[in-house]
Amino acid sequence: MAIITLTTDFGEKDHFAGAIKGAIYSELPEVRIVDISHSVAPFNVPEAAYIIQNAYSSFPKGTIHVIGIDSELNPENKHIAVKLDDHYFICANNGIMSMICSEIAPQKIVEINIHDRVATSFPVLDVFVNVACHIARGGTLEIIGKVINTIKPIKNLIPFVNDEKNQIIGSVIYVDNYGNVITNIKRKFFESVQKTRAYEISARSYKFKHIYDKYSDAINFDIPEDKRYDEGKGLVVFNSSGYLEIAVYKSDNATVGSASSLMGLKVMDTVTVNFAKL
Amino acid sequence: MAIITLTTDFGEKDHFAGAIKGAIYSELPEVRIVDISHSVAPFNVPEAAYIIQNAYSSFPKGTIHVIGIDSELNPENKHIAVKLDDHYFICANNGIMSMICSEIAPQKIVEINIHDRVATSFPVLDVFVNVACHIARGGTLEIIGKVINTIKPIKNLIPFVNDEKNQIIGSVIYVDNYGNVITNIKRKFFESVQKTRAYEISARSYKFKHIYDKYSDAINFDIPEDKRYDEGKGLVVFNSSGYLEIAVYKSDNATVGSASSLMGLKVMDTVTVNFAKL
Amino acid sequence: MAIITLTTDFGEKDHFAGAIKGAIYSELPEVRIVDISHSVAPFNVPEAAYIIQNAYSSFPKGTIHVIGIDSELNPENKHIAVKLDDHYFICANNGIMSMICSEIAPQKIVEINIHDRVATSFPVLDVFVNVACHIARGGTLEIIGKVINTIKPIKNLIPFVNDEKNQIIGSVIYVDNYGNVITNIKRKFFESVQKTRAYEISARSYKFKHIYDKYSDAINFDIPEDKRYDEGKGLVVFNSSGYLEIAVYKSDNATVGSASSLMGLKVMDTVTVNFAKL
Repeated sequence: MAIITLTTDFGEKDHFAGAIKGAIYSELPEVRIVDISHSVAPFNVPEAAYIIQNAYSSFPKGTIHVIGIDSELNPENKHIAVKLDDHYFICANNGIMSMICSEIAPQKIVEINIHDRVATSFPVLDVFVNVACHIARGGTLEIIGKVINTIKPIKNLIPFVNDEKNQIIGSVIYVDNYGNVITNIKRKFFESVQKTRAYEISARSYKFKHIYDKYSDAINFDIPEDKRYDEGKGLVVFNSSGYLEIAVYKSDNATVGSASSLMGLKVMDTVTVNFAKL
Repeated sequence: MAIITLTTDFGEKDHFAGAIKGAIYSELPEVRIVDISHSVAPFNVPEAAYIIQNAYSSFPKGTIHVIGIDSELNPENKHIAVKLDDHYFICANNGIMSMICSEIAPQKIVEINIHDRVATSFPVLDVFVNVACHIARGGTLEIIGKVINTIKPIKNLIPFVNDEKNQIIGSVIYVDNYGNVITNIKRKFFESVQKTRAYEISARSYKFKHIYDKYSDAINFDIPEDKRYDEGKGLVVFNSSGYLEIAVYKSDNATVGSASSLMGLKVMDTVTVNFAKL
Repeated sequence: MAIITLTTDFGEKDHFAGAIKGAIYSELPEVRIVDISHSVAPFNVPEAAYIIQNAYSSFPKGTIHVIGIDSELNPENKHIAVKLDDHYFICANNGIMSMICSEIAPQKIVEINIHDRVATSFPVLDVFVNVACHIARGGTLEIIGKVINTIKPIKNLIPFVNDEKNQIIGSVIYVDNYGNVITNIKRKFFESVQKTRAYEISARSYKFKHIYDKYSDAINFDIPEDKRYDEGKGLVVFNSSGYLEIAVYKSDNATVGSASSLMGLKVMDTVTVNFAKL
């Protein structure tokens, strides 16, 4: 039984996601549909890229991931299907796949060319569902598209290192449900630059000299709870997806505040790491 | 395997939708439950009518649609089950079905009368789940209700034409996740009044003289991207459900704005179409 | 086919819930996963306790409930699996289970001790999924934990009665999607104190002398609808889960207002019931 996942900016309210599910079940009554997210900010390709990158690999090999973000066909926005890591991704060629592809080479990319066969004012419903069901039935990518070799990149998603190799300049790429601020600096990249040096992480006027493995490692549980002043405490972790993240212990935007709300950090803001001399 | 869909105003947080699913699976372990929306605004019957109308037909014939909006039984609000287009709908007789029924004649309507057999302070759980499972097991509508011939209408959902036949007076019936403003003027109705005449669409002080087939048709891709000034551009389309919609290209309420936020358009606002002389 | 439910504070947008589902389906392709809620307020244990308490019992016996709220393992926060009412619950030992356990004695509680076998920076994914799949495959709790006898309580969730037995002092424990204000006073407890006495319910300056069985019982349907002034009318019911609830008829926070917004009532506010002399 194939699995088809959905990642879209349709929101939780409108009929779009329901219509997609109905169309898939109409073609494939036995398939399993799994919602990854319908709450990507409208047309926000980097957000979608971050979400699908961190969700897809938990699924079994062979899973088909439909990504409905900015998917209207136009002269600058073609539709693609990508096989990568033995998963299938169906989306617009608008940069969504560039974050994953920068880490894992795609096994195959096709530009979908079935549009002459389907009328389309709702391409996720009319085109992506067709392609997903084709793959779920065991069909090959070549039947629904022509092979291409490169995909469109997203700009500014990769951190860089200065010439002296003593500074990483990264940026915030995502703010999560807890208001935690996630940068584009991954642990492997960080460690390849760091070697054994001490470091200081800067975001606006905030400085951090330690990266924790998990949030509560920042808390001293030997101090009695009422004297701990740990709520609202800023800290840095490599999050469960391996990204450098500025967080606040037990944060909540709506009540105690979060890294994003308390430090005023938002997507595109610069986060730098300065390394000491050896 | 039957499919039961859920469209409610329960929201994403409360236990209501989870309880409904548990109750259905307890009766029918093999059924498939599909969420259409739980984010209908509380008690907002026209919103629910728009959502279910545009989602249901993607599902296979025989699908059972549970609609939990304003469903408390009282002297003015009875429960009905409707067979229409070979789909089943279970809801309160509060107007939700009138939008669909105005386009497609129902095959059968029953007023549900099993309330003497079930205690009910949560009618979707106590009554609608029972009825849905009854239908999913192949039961007939006559066993759970008595046949009636008419349903309660929603007022003001239908646009009208002036005596001179040169103006359609419609209104906004829905604002979607992108802030697009959807009117009650459907393409077929529009064209039946238009014939071959030129037209001007007015909403507040905004005027439009062209209706596109899709959003990006409003963009001139021959102009270099950085000189295009297309974000934030107002336009009119017939949307993928066939409704006249005032939209903004790549809109987002939270950032660049939307048709709703930028033009100040909201549900119930008037949208008119004036036709030129032939 | 086992059912695994999910109740978390992951929100609707992030990749966390999708990753969990992928991991479960990778281990158990035939299992059924049901979302109860991913919109619990971050780290809000009482909210999660209320939601799971009122959703779980609709599911079939044997259902496995994964609760991902404040689940990071640390010296003060251990992981437990609880068998209760023939359902299984997997969560942190942070009080979530204390509301259910105060009404129904658990059949078994184990403190999970598989952490030496799994690396974990995302415990719901790394630990809870493992435990859930173990149980779904028919495994016993003793294999994944050591039996313990008590769980951590949540403070202040239980109403109390004054010495004269003529007053219940309760508090607001939840505000639902309709802005209805739910107290910790359950019908059975209320009636055990009330006996046959008249009563007055007080919340801030608002007083109520009647508890309805359902919302529309507060409305006089003999009066013509346009003279009824029923929208916005405050009332008290025992809700469908048996809790004393202060509500507003057909409320909506965003438009007509709600018990919470109109009366200024929020979680932790005191609600008292004063009983008359017999």
